[in-house]
Amino acid sequence: MERARICFVGAGNLATHLSLAFSEHADVVQVYSRTEASAKMLADRLHCAYTTDIQALVNDADLYVCALKDSVLEEVLSQGDFKDKLVIHTAGSMPMSVFAAHAKRYGVIYPMQSFSKSKPVDFKKIPVFVEGSDAETLAYLHGLAEMVSDKVYDADTEVRGKLHIAAVFASNFSNHMYALAYELLKGSELPFEVLLPLIDETAQKVHSLAPKAAQTGPAVRYDTNVINKHLGMLKGDDALVEIYKLISKDIHERG
Amino acid sequence: MERARICFVGAGNLATHLSLAFSEHADVVQVYSRTEASAKMLADRLHCAYTTDIQALVNDADLYVCALKDSVLEEVLSQGDFKDKLVIHTAGSMPMSVFAAHAKRYGVIYPMQSFSKSKPVDFKKIPVFVEGSDAETLAYLHGLAEMVSDKVYDADTEVRGKLHIAAVFASNFSNHMYALAYELLKGSELPFEVLLPLIDETAQKVHSLAPKAAQTGPAVRYDTNVINKHLGMLKGDDALVEIYKLISKDIHERG
Repeated sequence: MERARICFVGAGNLATHLSLAFSEHADVVQVYSRTEASAKMLADRLHCAYTTDIQALVNDADLYVCALKDSVLEEVLSQGDFKDKLVIHTAGSMPMSVFAAHAKRYGVIYPMQSFSKSKPVDFKKIPVFVEGSDAETLAYLHGLAEMVSDKVYDADTEVRGKLHIAAVFASNFSNHMYALAYELLKGSELPFEVLLPLIDETAQKVHSLAPKAAQTGPAVRYDTNVINKHLGMLKGDDALVEIYKLISKDIHERG
Repeated sequence: MERARICFVGAGNLATHLSLAFSEHADVVQVYSRTEASAKMLADRLHCAYTTDIQALVNDADLYVCALKDSVLEEVLSQGDFKDKLVIHTAGSMPMSVFAAHAKRYGVIYPMQSFSKSKPVDFKKIPVFVEGSDAETLAYLHGLAEMVSDKVYDADTEVRGKLHIAAVFASNFSNHMYALAYELLKGSELPFEVLLPLIDETAQKVHSLAPKAAQTGPAVRYDTNVINKHLGMLKGDDALVEIYKLISKDIHERG
């Protein structure tokens, strides 16, 4: 495959990590962001040009990667000119068909990971899901994705939607459980670090056991003694009480 | 410290892992369980005696470890004779004072981990929290705990209660989020394994960022577009809808 010329539309967490991964195997030629500071910061890391004017995108890139908030994507598509360009987005829950009115060749490269700007990731290990407007485009995008990840799958809009919602539960919601544990420990003299071995083991376990089979604790044992003690301790934070009750009930009922 | 003689009252997951860890540094001399099969299975692994009669416990052990369901502990304490014995339990949510009417010297060794019989653990890495009825007992238990774990903390009943509820959130509830993701993927052709890099990274992240700072996804961005799309996709499973709404709202409100 010839060295591809890629233009990034967006300069957030995902754009940052994906463009840096691509830059080892392709030429990232330009970064667009509405905010000059963001555009410049990423362009500096990539040693490439940047713009804050969507109509000033270069015309000759092989690929335009829109890594934008879902709510911004359609606006950018209608302001820019993507008719004769190959344009993709990177979002879990956005259908590929969002491009149909704006371009002839389009697709999706969805890297399923929780990106924070300050934390480097090993992109090779991130599962990437690809969709294309036609067989040739899909093959091209699949090849590009394989340059940055060892785990590339084809997935259409419907499957990608399921993946995204599963990812919200597996990552965002489990992280919120960590956040609530963090708050609960604040009242004691113990640091959050004491929970890390437990958090790691819980994540590690589901590599070899299905999550249901790995479950332990008062809810799955239906130990109402402990459950009621805990609910008593949570009094004063109605949201915590409600979350504790609802999840315990669900563990028990699906158990 | 002289090689301690330890008797285990209980033969479940925690008793199994803790007794095996102790057996490398102490003599586990007897296992009690109400169920003969459980008592024999663990005793065979420890090459020691077993009994199903609580009144047939040996009299000369240095320590009696009750690793029992909370609801069973009090019953066993009143049936056995612990007056002149050093007796402890291993539970997060049970106060140490449960022993006051039954023994003179007592305490707690609470290893905070999610144990499954089929999965070996590296006990050295498990945080262990110790409480004792008096300074001498506490020091003795602390020393014993240090034989099996590199992370031994003193924690009284109140702190241990907070730890346990934090552990339920960080482990049992986050594992349930994995279980729900597992169910959501069932309808697609993709295996649960595609979520493992995301699960690992989410756990890994909170080693270097506070959970709140590590949060990503539609709820913390308050991306109502995506949130409403997801709620539409979850229709038909009322519990899932309720969990999705409640946790998303809580992420947003504490964010």
